[in-house]
Amino acid sequence: MTSVEDKGSRKAKPESRSPQTLPETPDTAVAGKLKTLLDGPWAEVKDNIREQLNREEALPMIEGSLEEIRAALLEKVKMVATSGMMQTAFSKANGGSGESHVGILGLDLLGQFNGSLAIKSGVQFGLWGGAVDVLGTERHREYAQGAMDLSKLGSYGMTERGHGSNVQDLETTATYDPETKEFVINTPSPSATKVYIGNTARDGRWSAVFAQLYTPGVEESHGVHCFVVRIREEDGSPVEGVTIGDHGHKGGLLGVDNGTLTFDNVRIPREALLNQFGDVDEEGNYTSPIDSKNRRFFTMLGTLIRGRIAVGAAGAGATKSSLAIAMKYAHQRRQFDYGDTGTEDKLIDYRAHRRRLIIPLARTYAIQVLQNQLTQRYADQTSRQATGEWSVTNPTKQQALASREMETLAAAFKAVATEHATDTIQECREACGGAGFMSENLLTTYRADTDVYNTFEGDNTVLLQLAGKNLLTAYTSELANPSAMDIVKFAATNVSDIIRSRAGLGSTVQSVVDTFSGEEASLFDADYQLKVVQLREQLVMRSLIRRIQGARKLSREEGAKVIDKAQDHMLNAAWAYIENLMVQAMIEAERTLPVGSAERAVFEQVRHLFVFDTIIRNAGWYQEQNVLSSGRVKAARAAINDLVDSLGPWSEVLVDAFDIPSVVLDRPLFKDGGTDDSRDNPEAWKVGSNIPVSKK
Amino acid sequence: MTSVEDKGSRKAKPESRSPQTLPETPDTAVAGKLKTLLDGPWAEVKDNIREQLNREEALPMIEGSLEEIRAALLEKVKMVATSGMMQTAFSKANGGSGESHVGILGLDLLGQFNGSLAIKSGVQFGLWGGAVDVLGTERHREYAQGAMDLSKLGSYGMTERGHGSNVQDLETTATYDPETKEFVINTPSPSATKVYIGNTARDGRWSAVFAQLYTPGVEESHGVHCFVVRIREEDGSPVEGVTIGDHGHKGGLLGVDNGTLTFDNVRIPREALLNQFGDVDEEGNYTSPIDSKNRRFFTMLGTLIRGRIAVGAAGAGATKSSLAIAMKYAHQRRQFDYGDTGTEDKLIDYRAHRRRLIIPLARTYAIQVLQNQLTQRYADQTSRQATGEWSVTNPTKQQALASREMETLAAAFKAVATEHATDTIQECREACGGAGFMSENLLTTYRADTDVYNTFEGDNTVLLQLAGKNLLTAYTSELANPSAMDIVKFAATNVSDIIRSRAGLGSTVQSVVDTFSGEEASLFDADYQLKVVQLREQLVMRSLIRRIQGARKLSREEGAKVIDKAQDHMLNAAWAYIENLMVQAMIEAERTLPVGSAERAVFEQVRHLFVFDTIIRNAGWYQEQNVLSSGRVKAARAAINDLVDSLGPWSEVLVDAFDIPSVVLDRPLFKDGGTDDSRDNPEAWKVGSNIPVSKK
Repeated sequence: MTSVEDKGSRKAKPESRSPQTLPETPDTAVAGKLKTLLDGPWAEVKDNIREQLNREEALPMIEGSLEEIRAALLEKVKMVATSGMMQTAFSKANGGSGESHVGILGLDLLGQFNGSLAIKSGVQFGLWGGAVDVLGTERHREYAQGAMDLSKLGSYGMTERGHGSNVQDLETTATYDPETKEFVINTPSPSATKVYIGNTARDGRWSAVFAQLYTPGVEESHGVHCFVVRIREEDGSPVEGVTIGDHGHKGGLLGVDNGTLTFDNVRIPREALLNQFGDVDEEGNYTSPIDSKNRRFFTMLGTLIRGRIAVGAAGAGATKSSLAIAMKYAHQRRQFDYGDTGTEDKLIDYRAHRRRLIIPLARTYAIQVLQNQLTQRYADQTSRQATGEWSVTNPTKQQALASREMETLAAAFKAVATEHATDTIQECREACGGAGFMSENLLTTYRADTDVYNTFEGDNTVLLQLAGKNLLTAYTSELANPSAMDIVKFAATNVSDIIRSRAGLGSTVQSVVDTFSGEEASLFDADYQLKVVQLREQLVMRSLIRRIQGARKLSREEGAKVIDKAQDHMLNAAWAYIENLMVQAMIEAERTLPVGSAERAVFEQVRHLFVFDTIIRNAGWYQEQNVLSSGRVKAARAAINDLVDSLGPWSEVLVDAFDIPSVVLDRPLFKDGGTDDSRDNPEAWKVGSNIPVSKK
Repeated sequence: MTSVEDKGSRKAKPESRSPQTLPETPDTAVAGKLKTLLDGPWAEVKDNIREQLNREEALPMIEGSLEEIRAALLEKVKMVATSGMMQTAFSKANGGSGESHVGILGLDLLGQFNGSLAIKSGVQFGLWGGAVDVLGTERHREYAQGAMDLSKLGSYGMTERGHGSNVQDLETTATYDPETKEFVINTPSPSATKVYIGNTARDGRWSAVFAQLYTPGVEESHGVHCFVVRIREEDGSPVEGVTIGDHGHKGGLLGVDNGTLTFDNVRIPREALLNQFGDVDEEGNYTSPIDSKNRRFFTMLGTLIRGRIAVGAAGAGATKSSLAIAMKYAHQRRQFDYGDTGTEDKLIDYRAHRRRLIIPLARTYAIQVLQNQLTQRYADQTSRQATGEWSVTNPTKQQALASREMETLAAAFKAVATEHATDTIQECREACGGAGFMSENLLTTYRADTDVYNTFEGDNTVLLQLAGKNLLTAYTSELANPSAMDIVKFAATNVSDIIRSRAGLGSTVQSVVDTFSGEEASLFDADYQLKVVQLREQLVMRSLIRRIQGARKLSREEGAKVIDKAQDHMLNAAWAYIENLMVQAMIEAERTLPVGSAERAVFEQVRHLFVFDTIIRNAGWYQEQNVLSSGRVKAARAAINDLVDSLGPWSEVLVDAFDIPSVVLDRPLFKDGGTDDSRDNPEAWKVGSNIPVSKK
């Protein structure tokens, strides 16, 4: 792929095996082929929900009082309940299909329509419903079924004001009173207030409350456990002893009624403890099928794993809708006449515009194929657990490691997908200019709603550090919540374990090579690309270990300082890890397409674009570490320009492959006089915000 | 500056003259010293407005219907009018002080309180008022004074649906009818609809409408001119022939009533033409004191120059408020206990947190000192124009070049300041976690309001290209609106002019050196830093010229393609240009501080941090071009970590220097149970969104 632009400028080394520029006229049939790939094995369930929700009512309500917007959202959640999709994720015992992973697919699709709808549904079915379904037992069936049929609206009472991401140190207490056979739920201080709890300020009648469990005669807490607590009477007034606050207006997700909860020695029956992994008998004796307190804690937090993947998926859903809107606009809207041709050019005809949309589009593809692999793995794990082949309470060592790896994957995936959502939706908004800022065109609402995805269900920075720590401790479950010095000591003595443990998700791609001398290979070779990103992952990890090992002879405090100073390094390690997995996923996805087909040729260029963008994001590092020569990096930079030019005419096909429901794409900006079809069309006077006002 | 962290990791080359780590206990008096520097020569006017506006009512209204929020905003604008600040920017002839630059200071300060207030005030006083003040003559005095005292609310009717940033090709027509001595204002097609016009959907009674001017017997338009058009009767109903649309809900700036305007052959008196730079006599003869149509157009667009700097300043204002909130929160809020010390650490104690806030803080300082230089230059230019020393209509060649340079500076400054606002406010929001997402803490409103700054008053991408083109054409006013081939031809023959024309704003800093062999110099030397960024600017420009020169033998269409493909290169040139000016401004500002003083020591580290961050943003390029060795880049990377560690304890002092009004900083997140002072304080139960609801 060589182009006129290099003439006259210092030439980058030409690359062999560079793909041909794609035909200028795209083959629209490719969209269907790529849709099949992106939908993965779940095309049917996705198409079903696309069709059922393809109604104006699924979109966010923009104007109105908070009360109106919240009331409208509850009706929309009822639409989702009617579709039946989210209920299939419940266990068979509770009347579901045991397809837990459908919760992930669901949030991706709901996120394409409406962030508030995705999140409120996620709270009701996935968090409140998921907690009673997974942590509860037979005696909690009525709650699971109430969550499914909406007869019991509930919330997930985990986060406390003083302890956002630090769940293990929650302050709320649940103290067993053998006299009355009740638990007493109490909020000891303002910092123990449950905050940001969705489905609480207006609608919730119940909450799955996480609290430190105390039993008589045992001084120490048995750790955080989950309890079903009634918070409102049927008439909507708070239960005695429960104080409910309203967070009011937020920066997004306006329909979701986030609120606060405090408990003044509220008494609940002993059976309200969700007792799958820990129970208290009538006398107050505590028992658990899991001996390790640490492992028990992380097992109970299992609902968070799915929640994190699902939040990432909801962010990806909004990203796809936004890219579809902005890309279609770029193919219709004209602006300026740089070409001196007498007609203004389309936005997509500008190199800068192609770069701003097609580069994030390629990354969106990579996130989607990784999400598919993760979802598949999650589905496999939960189905093996359902059959008993995989014991949740007493897993094999390999299963325990795989669980920690799943936690790591979910954390890193959530961070990469939600950060990408924030960046990309903003870019889409700007790419649509003033029209992008009008709420009727949805982009600003996607942007505002997805913003908080970066910090809820685990703050991205904290999650990336969690991933980095898991990588450093080789997923050892004994170190589920390692202190700084635990990490230092482990890293000092288990280097090879750590390096070996970095697993891939796929199967067809060769594992990492230790030596690397690829200057004769082509930048466009998949194997070479994989080696480049794997080598980065490995080198970042090795230097991180070296850096930390230096602390093993220091005091606890000094050692902790070293860990703190390695924070950005740990974050880099997590990024390198997840980007490596995305590259693998792209290569594997490409190999499922027929050799020689148009869809494969297009997908290959998307893969190149994603890989080169990933390399250029770290262009400084690659040269500092002598992994890539300056010529190589220049060649990657030049190739990005060639690729966006080649993919330009195909970029609408690429967003069509997302199969975004038509109601989402039916936006005023396509009809109001700003695009080719509408400029001189008298009907354009009467669209969207063109509608006149008589008097103001 | 060496630190424990480097032990065990591959060591970067040690740098001489690295500054000492600052004392762990900050000297709070430094905040006042730095405030003096940042306020520049305008401390008095700024302090005055800080005090006058320091009231709850200046903050944005968050909840309510659009009508309520808009009505409330109009009252807030009246507060601003009462303060008298914005009126001083009007010419003395109209009763102002002729201090045009106060419009820039004003938007910075208003932006610290409330984006909607900044923008609606900017429209009323700066755009509508500025247009009649600058483009009008004696006969338009009543409009200027009506703009100042709010008796005439008005708007700036420039943007059209089909021509966002392409003002020269506006479609609205103003045709002179000598029979009635009137102009006929007409909207010929939907794409000619005036859109996104602030102060229009609800409040405006008047508009400064930009339209192609036609006179009898002359086929071609005399170019875009500005007319005062009444759009509403006193009772609020639209004037006959004027259709007003309402954009309704937007992604931000909710209080600003943006609307659309279309004109169905609306007749206005001949005198409604703002005739400073072009007039039509009763018979319909057109005259202008400016011969060149191109220069006439750009002279009339002069109001945009100030508007662009002011929008950048408004973005910087919101950025400063956001950083102050997030930084103070980081100094109070505790989270986790990585240090194994038994108490959770403050957020600012985490390296990752220091990086995410202090690095953008350093860039905010750089933007502020550049803004001060720009404002000073703008003030000098306008005061010389007011005395007649500088003729607006017949400038000397040097003055004409300086005007084009001012246009370039304004465009690039607006782009860099608003992009930085978007990124930084988002980072601040995330750094405050869930609390950052609650509207009561203001961050999401700053974020939503400033979003559109990236695309209005000129889309940032378009502005950066404008800057790039101006650089490429060496500010030649004959090429005010060059075609692609004009640029190619100019670049092919005027290389040395182009390279020489890149000017600085300051005086004390030595000009660029052509040769560069600085490996023996220290990274921490100001001269060295300046050379590094200047060399980047120069090399990017040289290679851009080379690339474009290759097109001079091609056809017009082929040549235009080459220009299109150089788009990202042109954007890079504009970035390199403005970053160079920021580095210069930082060095010059530092030299005004007493040698050996604490404030100078602190400021110096802020300068280093900004410079190294700028280098690392382009780390790939610096190595690809062999400008910096990998060791140097590594050293800069390591120094960034040392600098955020050193500045960590001082970072609250650094935001205190912004002197953000106390009403802005009086946010619930400091009192509601999430920070040190509030955790166990019973009053914290009753703050902000903790306030209970009784029934829902």
